[in-house]
Amino acid sequence: MAKSTPEDAGKFAYDGLDRALHEKARLGIMTSLVTRPDGIVFGDLKALCNLTDGNLSRHLDVLTKEGLVKIHKAFVANRPQTTCRLSPLGRKRFREYLSQLEQVLRDAQAAEIATSPNSSTGWAPA
Amino acid sequence: MAKSTPEDAGKFAYDGLDRALHEKARLGIMTSLVTRPDGIVFGDLKALCNLTDGNLSRHLDVLTKEGLVKIHKAFVANRPQTTCRLSPLGRKRFREYLSQLEQVLRDAQAAEIATSPNSSTGWAPA
Repeated sequence: MAKSTPEDAGKFAYDGLDRALHEKARLGIMTSLVTRPDGIVFGDLKALCNLTDGNLSRHLDVLTKEGLVKIHKAFVANRPQTTCRLSPLGRKRFREYLSQLEQVLRDAQAAEIATSPNSSTGWAPA
Repeated sequence: MAKSTPEDAGKFAYDGLDRALHEKARLGIMTSLVTRPDGIVFGDLKALCNLTDGNLSRHLDVLTKEGLVKIHKAFVANRPQTTCRLSPLGRKRFREYLSQLEQVLRDAQAAEIATSPNSSTGWAPA
């Protein structure tokens, strides 16, 4: 069995996996928002992420408190409309988060190559 | 502002992001284990993932209850040694999880290309 060497310490700690962004629903919300720089209305975001009103509100609350998402409330055709948008900080933090996700995939892919030279799992990053 | 179409519904729900695996510490544990098919002793795994004894035990408990990790206890040179290893189910579920992670990266990358044609963020998947 291979032993860990001291220089391996913390190799798989993934400290860059920001907890505010790593939560599954918030990851969906952030990915939705990054696809629409002009913002997404609350109802559309709910549908894209398959979330309930309550769940989406709760997660948006976490993201706005972290300064990652901006919420804009307005009246459109006499009806209240809530629009959600990524902040510049949100875009920056999400990019950093995605780099870390890539690292996870690279680490796992390296393992796959090292341990099964003839594997054909089909999940290797493109 | 772009509107969501019904066929977009649930597009960013990422239901494949298995909660047992998506938790940050467990993601590190699983990536460590996938790199070492022969298993990793408890102390080495702790170092690789920067976890305390208590935290590692708690997360291993979740993973073994899901059948994703096997724990083997033995005496080596008269001292107890705990070895952790991925189960075949664990390997399969982790591969499925990684495919979903790749999808997140593809979605975010597609957004990046669509919204900033001259961007040079450097985080695009290889």
